[in-house]
Amino acid sequence: MNKLIIILSLVVLSVQAKSPYEIIDNSPDSAWRDLNPEQTLYITLETGVVVVELAPQFAPNHVDNTKKLVREGVFDNTSFYRVVDGFVAQGGPAEPEKIAKPKNGKLTIDAEFTVKPNKPLDFTAIGLIDGYAPQTGFVDGFAAAYDKQKGEYWMTHCYGTMAMGRGNPANSGGTELYIVIGSAQRYLDKNTTVFGRVITGMEHIQHLQRSSNLKGAVDMKGKNKIISIKVASDLKPEERMALQTMKTNSASFKAIIKSRKNRNGEWFLYQHNYIDVCSVAVPVRLKNVKVKSFN
Amino acid sequence: MNKLIIILSLVVLSVQAKSPYEIIDNSPDSAWRDLNPEQTLYITLETGVVVVELAPQFAPNHVDNTKKLVREGVFDNTSFYRVVDGFVAQGGPAEPEKIAKPKNGKLTIDAEFTVKPNKPLDFTAIGLIDGYAPQTGFVDGFAAAYDKQKGEYWMTHCYGTMAMGRGNPANSGGTELYIVIGSAQRYLDKNTTVFGRVITGMEHIQHLQRSSNLKGAVDMKGKNKIISIKVASDLKPEERMALQTMKTNSASFKAIIKSRKNRNGEWFLYQHNYIDVCSVAVPVRLKNVKVKSFN
Repeated sequence: MNKLIIILSLVVLSVQAKSPYEIIDNSPDSAWRDLNPEQTLYITLETGVVVVELAPQFAPNHVDNTKKLVREGVFDNTSFYRVVDGFVAQGGPAEPEKIAKPKNGKLTIDAEFTVKPNKPLDFTAIGLIDGYAPQTGFVDGFAAAYDKQKGEYWMTHCYGTMAMGRGNPANSGGTELYIVIGSAQRYLDKNTTVFGRVITGMEHIQHLQRSSNLKGAVDMKGKNKIISIKVASDLKPEERMALQTMKTNSASFKAIIKSRKNRNGEWFLYQHNYIDVCSVAVPVRLKNVKVKSFN
Repeated sequence: MNKLIIILSLVVLSVQAKSPYEIIDNSPDSAWRDLNPEQTLYITLETGVVVVELAPQFAPNHVDNTKKLVREGVFDNTSFYRVVDGFVAQGGPAEPEKIAKPKNGKLTIDAEFTVKPNKPLDFTAIGLIDGYAPQTGFVDGFAAAYDKQKGEYWMTHCYGTMAMGRGNPANSGGTELYIVIGSAQRYLDKNTTVFGRVITGMEHIQHLQRSSNLKGAVDMKGKNKIISIKVASDLKPEERMALQTMKTNSASFKAIIKSRKNRNGEWFLYQHNYIDVCSVAVPVRLKNVKVKSFN
């Protein structure tokens, strides 16, 4: 009997001791999903391609309108004209008011700061305190926050989050894409419409030249070229990467959250019993090749 | 009388409405201090110079030993051999066990994860909840945490924080400098010795080539060259930048914390009444020129 208890304890211990890497390595294929090419953008820069997954669950109109503008070529031959180190890289047509009126897409659309769906979203909660929101967690791969009382969800500004810049009026954005390139910028939550996340290629965004005025001058116009932005479904299959992302409502991902909260590897001498939503990277891999993008 | 109340209210409002930028612009020179050249490193990379301020208040032995190694040229002609996007860039001699034994500095020194000074440090508290520490705030320009009960302080892993890598044993680090290049990595707090912060030049770190294996393979050896690391006091005065940083115990910086907690600009439609320690950038400027590095 004692032997059984010892064996059971060892089994429990070895389950608890799994690192995020081990969880990924042992995850079943059912814990992963392909990116939907209709909801994926390929941003081609001079040093390589940045792949962005769009979030129609959170900002359907921004996703729809951005794809219309993309398909009309509004973002081709534009630039990341404002790049503030440790903060955001902002790109698209630097002077949208001067370009030809798009046929299908709109240059400005109404804000979608939060979403209030009729039925609750499939929200995988972290279950820990957060200074900016009542609850944080994940919906379909996207780091998010949830106000149960109001029935509202919104995406959180983490590293690699894509959102829409705007002027002072709430509904003044439409072409000013920005990507978070440093610390999480959670104070921007609920102030802009977040509608995507970078899946791979952040190093190409990081490679961009910084604005000279670090307050965020728009002075990189014509530099930091955006060669093109395409919807993946408009590319030939052989031009797409076979990217997969872990399902954030899977048992594997829930195990990763737990593992991140208390890192069990031999290396970790102090455990915080805490993790913030922006510190749980959602695993990405190439289908079959199973190269992991994770830290 | 009513007129006076209105005027007073307007004065109060205009004081409350100051943005971080306005606070910086209006800060007196007494709110700033020069970097101490004896506590400043110049890291020269192929694309430019990264300036790091050292924190002897938190890790006196790491600061002392690193300067000894720097002065013996241990970091010259080495590389950032491990660069994991969104996480850290780690550099120095890739195989320290193979280099000649330094005369003054040591290749491994004992950890200084926290500091427990005889008299309390001059800690400017943020005064808000934090998932990783009882209290967060700033000491002499460095983002830090404080456990009043234990009398312990430690630096927090924010964007641009410099710390010492190590193997599994606590006291196995000494040459593996790393810099946080993405999200704050607060779960590393109290697991490594943090002993500096980047003052300027993060864009050169971001420019480095990423490791191919995103788990963090040491495969950039020989690439991502560190041309040299120097202590600023060993450079000629004309080779140094006249950098200043805001005193974090100044009234101006306390006003910045307050302003960050509730951003008052017309642009902000939602205020969180919260800010985390890694989202309060400590202002940096060039003396007299007063170029601001701030976001």
